[in-house]
Amino acid sequence: MQAQLIALDWGTTSLRAYRLGEHGRVLEQRSLSAGIMQLPSTPRSIGGQQVSNGFELAFDEACGDWLDAEPTLPVIACGMVGSAQGWREAVYQQTPASVAALSSALVTVRSVRGVDVHIIPGILQRSELPNVMRGEETQVLGILDSLPASEAAKPLLIGLPGSHSKWVRAVDGRIEHFDTFMTGEVYAALSSHTILGRTMQRSETFDAEAFDRGVAVSRSANGAAGPLSTIFSCRTLGLTGELSGTAQSDYLSGLLIGHEIVALAQLLRQADAQLPAVILIGSDALIARYQRALDANGFAQVILAQQATERGLWQVAVQAGLIQSSSSAAARPLHVEN
Amino acid sequence: MQAQLIALDWGTTSLRAYRLGEHGRVLEQRSLSAGIMQLPSTPRSIGGQQVSNGFELAFDEACGDWLDAEPTLPVIACGMVGSAQGWREAVYQQTPASVAALSSALVTVRSVRGVDVHIIPGILQRSELPNVMRGEETQVLGILDSLPASEAAKPLLIGLPGSHSKWVRAVDGRIEHFDTFMTGEVYAALSSHTILGRTMQRSETFDAEAFDRGVAVSRSANGAAGPLSTIFSCRTLGLTGELSGTAQSDYLSGLLIGHEIVALAQLLRQADAQLPAVILIGSDALIARYQRALDANGFAQVILAQQATERGLWQVAVQAGLIQSSSSAAARPLHVEN
Repeated sequence: MQAQLIALDWGTTSLRAYRLGEHGRVLEQRSLSAGIMQLPSTPRSIGGQQVSNGFELAFDEACGDWLDAEPTLPVIACGMVGSAQGWREAVYQQTPASVAALSSALVTVRSVRGVDVHIIPGILQRSELPNVMRGEETQVLGILDSLPASEAAKPLLIGLPGSHSKWVRAVDGRIEHFDTFMTGEVYAALSSHTILGRTMQRSETFDAEAFDRGVAVSRSANGAAGPLSTIFSCRTLGLTGELSGTAQSDYLSGLLIGHEIVALAQLLRQADAQLPAVILIGSDALIARYQRALDANGFAQVILAQQATERGLWQVAVQAGLIQSSSSAAARPLHVEN
Repeated sequence: MQAQLIALDWGTTSLRAYRLGEHGRVLEQRSLSAGIMQLPSTPRSIGGQQVSNGFELAFDEACGDWLDAEPTLPVIACGMVGSAQGWREAVYQQTPASVAALSSALVTVRSVRGVDVHIIPGILQRSELPNVMRGEETQVLGILDSLPASEAAKPLLIGLPGSHSKWVRAVDGRIEHFDTFMTGEVYAALSSHTILGRTMQRSETFDAEAFDRGVAVSRSANGAAGPLSTIFSCRTLGLTGELSGTAQSDYLSGLLIGHEIVALAQLLRQADAQLPAVILIGSDALIARYQRALDANGFAQVILAQQATERGLWQVAVQAGLIQSSSSAAARPLHVEN
């Protein structure tokens, strides 16, 4: 089937490439470890020229053969590839942000083979404590554009758990506000570089009971001490024989994700009495954890979204006029799992 | 002047030794890096025997010459030397704990030179989230025993900032309750092992303005997001040019210590409407930071205590009957600085 677009989700540690056909249908996809902080470095010939630039090399690995076959395919990219450390800086756009706003602010870098790569800028929120994201805005807009108009008009909260979790409030298809929690990165730092890691024992299976216990502590009167204090209980519950070594990492995960959701609910209640509907985007394993913590904290309606990145890249490309044919009609409505 | 006691404060990374005279006066003191996790390992002869045990080697380095001169001096020690990884395990005593309770629970290990080392046990608090300390209990009891009786009878809060900060509530000379915050260790892990460290630039001087800004954020409406979220502002304020690289580490320090004190105040208010008087024990530089954060959070009365460790070790030794002479009278009253 003929392709319409090459779409790249190019982050710090990974590069995902999609070959998209009519209506944004995924024809082929690839995942490389060539994130902007671990680009390839072995020079080689591309289009008859000797190339040593890591971005060029990674780009060629990701989709050189697709472009050999169809040299006029447009290319769009989102993520850290547009940061100051990226291939070409795409200066942050400010909130509120819509697909239209982002698609009119694409920044272009011409690759050695003569193909332009259109980079979607990240978003900056100029609040007292500023916030930034690169890549997640494309996922969020992909989801918003796929919702029935009646749903998209309501206030929505879109969660993107990860190393740095983003919680995005959207109204009428626009990103209005977002918060960042460094939960994933803090979890990794605590597990690998503090005393808490010393008594943890590896386990291949998810210990739901230990995780839920951590979530429950974060919501309890003891949880008022905050994560700087409650995390010490990973160690002390081990010392008193109340928490096994293999349960400690999922307990810590439950504590941290629990504190994140408790704080999030508090921020939301400052703005509105009612908790909004939540759409979650991310890997299955992480989403499952967040769903448990959201349930425990009274978030009644949680929807899981799929293919957010491909959808967002497609939508922005369509709006920017990169796709000429009749195939630029909107992608099919979002498939949701309750 | 003749000595009465050798007192050791033997922690994870350091070993401090005191030669104490009448009334606990410090005649001489030493600081070694021979904590229980970094003991010396080169075998040598002690008292005519070839010795390779790291505890023996460190003990000899710390006070072998003092014991050569006065072989009958009693020796007391507190800290991680009594942990399961220490020289001899001194099983935790439970709260509430007094000097009398600890001094009747000393555990003895006989060194190769025939001298007994009396180890003070740590304290365990069996609450829903258990808490433990080793070493800090001796400092706290040293301070409590030095206070005028009228002061010691009041509810007091004793703060021991550090890698793991301890906040101890005491009444009538007894340790009733304590909380732990892993603030110092979390600060180190975030600075060295997360993205926050990448934009930090070293500075030799304390940036009070940046520190106070962090404290103010932790107390603000934005602070309700908790430390997992506010810490990201170290990076974003840098990206927007609002916080220089050299200011970022003190800003992060202010955020974390601020979150600790905000949470502490909330825990205290759950128990009592009024914030208690605070006594701080620790290094001058760290105490100065905590004083700023306590001031900002409405703790009106903050007292700095000195020589807490030596005082505590002396008091327990006296109560345990290790010191026979008339010199066992209480040390002079606590010198306080307001």
